[in-house]
Amino acid sequence: MSAFPFSKLVIFGVGLIGGSLARGLRERGAAQGQRGQVIGVGRRAHSVARALELGVIDAAATLDDEAALAAALDGADIVLIAAPVAQTQALLERIAPHLQPHTLITDAGSTKSDVIAAARAALGERIGQFVPGHPIAGRESSGVEAALPDLYVGRNVVLCPLPENTPEAVERIAAMWRATGAVIGQMSAAQHDRVFASVSHLPHVLSFALVDQILDTPDAELKFSFAAGGFRDFTRIAASSPEMWRDVCLANRTALLAELDAYTEVLAKLRAAIDAGDGAALETVFARSRAAREAWQERGGKKLAQATPEADGAK
Amino acid sequence: MSAFPFSKLVIFGVGLIGGSLARGLRERGAAQGQRGQVIGVGRRAHSVARALELGVIDAAATLDDEAALAAALDGADIVLIAAPVAQTQALLERIAPHLQPHTLITDAGSTKSDVIAAARAALGERIGQFVPGHPIAGRESSGVEAALPDLYVGRNVVLCPLPENTPEAVERIAAMWRATGAVIGQMSAAQHDRVFASVSHLPHVLSFALVDQILDTPDAELKFSFAAGGFRDFTRIAASSPEMWRDVCLANRTALLAELDAYTEVLAKLRAAIDAGDGAALETVFARSRAAREAWQERGGKKLAQATPEADGAK
Repeated sequence: MSAFPFSKLVIFGVGLIGGSLARGLRERGAAQGQRGQVIGVGRRAHSVARALELGVIDAAATLDDEAALAAALDGADIVLIAAPVAQTQALLERIAPHLQPHTLITDAGSTKSDVIAAARAALGERIGQFVPGHPIAGRESSGVEAALPDLYVGRNVVLCPLPENTPEAVERIAAMWRATGAVIGQMSAAQHDRVFASVSHLPHVLSFALVDQILDTPDAELKFSFAAGGFRDFTRIAASSPEMWRDVCLANRTALLAELDAYTEVLAKLRAAIDAGDGAALETVFARSRAAREAWQERGGKKLAQATPEADGAK
Repeated sequence: MSAFPFSKLVIFGVGLIGGSLARGLRERGAAQGQRGQVIGVGRRAHSVARALELGVIDAAATLDDEAALAAALDGADIVLIAAPVAQTQALLERIAPHLQPHTLITDAGSTKSDVIAAARAALGERIGQFVPGHPIAGRESSGVEAALPDLYVGRNVVLCPLPENTPEAVERIAAMWRATGAVIGQMSAAQHDRVFASVSHLPHVLSFALVDQILDTPDAELKFSFAAGGFRDFTRIAASSPEMWRDVCLANRTALLAELDAYTEVLAKLRAAIDAGDGAALETVFARSRAAREAWQERGGKKLAQATPEADGAK
């Protein structure tokens, strides 16, 4: 293994996430001198064709061409699965027959326990070659056209190493992400799933639910007409992909239900306080929330785990 | 009455809302040639003193000086109450003894049914002089220092006329707000309270509740550390004033509880779908919400009610 994290990288799903990794590694100079080759694999010829046209990848393969798939994986150092989490197991089953001993696989899925279960089912004894990962980055737009070389600058990438992973394997995946400007965090898969159920998946469900609830009221039009900034911020994530969030909710069902139930209890407590006219109870909750939200913002909000000066360039 | 909506305006509470009205009327040229006088009334000498210093008001009075209060109200065309809604009745009771027949009172409260009840209690037979209003504008900062002359430009001001208001009285208040660049909407107080319970008050409660729920979990710190853009947008309103939102929740209790209960039902439906692994049900709700959110955004989001002239009429 060279000092550079890969000489051949294969990306399954060259959209925003996979495409930004490829562009980030190249355009941030990670591949200077010993530029790695990047192969994109897609379900449809036209999506990888677009990635080729844009110069995001060097070569392309589609899933329906077994020989091209085998050639793509031959000699690969790292394979990234950047497809919807529900496809993970099927993709790993396609990869498994061509998996070489020195190849590492990682992923970019928003949930980890289910991805690990899929990887164990597909890879069996070779599970140590799979290092679960989750880059915490996104944009409102998707697809390879939206890919940015600096998408990961200063952003967190969470790795959830398995007992079967060697420290060297974990470090190799970490080095790849670091080369894009990302900051690496580590936690267990269970912790990861609780954390993101709480700060990402649940807010999405709550935001979708508010818009849905308004739509079923007789004065929905009037409500939307007078909705202002608070509504805009609160429901921004309700414009997210329904398919992706359906999959995330199902993939992270256990952790999400636990957070949702705890949240419903807080709502019930607030409902009781409003009903009883208990202003002191409301103010206590609101003041505690505001203090925590302000402290979070002051510590840098989403950039908390960065701490590096170059993080300022991230957008 | 002159063509200009007032020759003497008295503002109770010269903060962001009251101060921006004063600055907007002046700096947008509304008072050119026949500049109206603006008197600020505050609880504390130092808050009105700051407004005087900044040139936002021409003269000041404090509530503890009955003679100054009487002088302030003498000859007033319009009185605006821009104080927390919970103070409305007490303020109207202080105003009532000095209320002259040609004087109109309006307010800037976020809730209307309770404000109207307070006004009826304080003003009795003179309730026709009170035109309930709600400018839909705000900033993260508060206080007279945050007041802006263009805060209301293109923003909605909702009036909820009473059966006792003459059309001329409603038009005089509407003209004052229009002179700041605002767009006037009209609806009943009950409609108003349902609309804002839904698109403003409920989202605030839901956002405060999420932060509160996270704080009570053992891995709260880890969760905040990895919270990103979705969390940031969803919880922006959890940094709002606890006192103000306590008062709003209590003042609009009936409408808010109805919206909260309907919302809780939607959440229960989504919980059941997640628990049952019913992806189709989740996707249906998420897709419908996204479509509505995107349509709202495309129609101009918070500025929806501006674009069309008919928005000026009753909605």
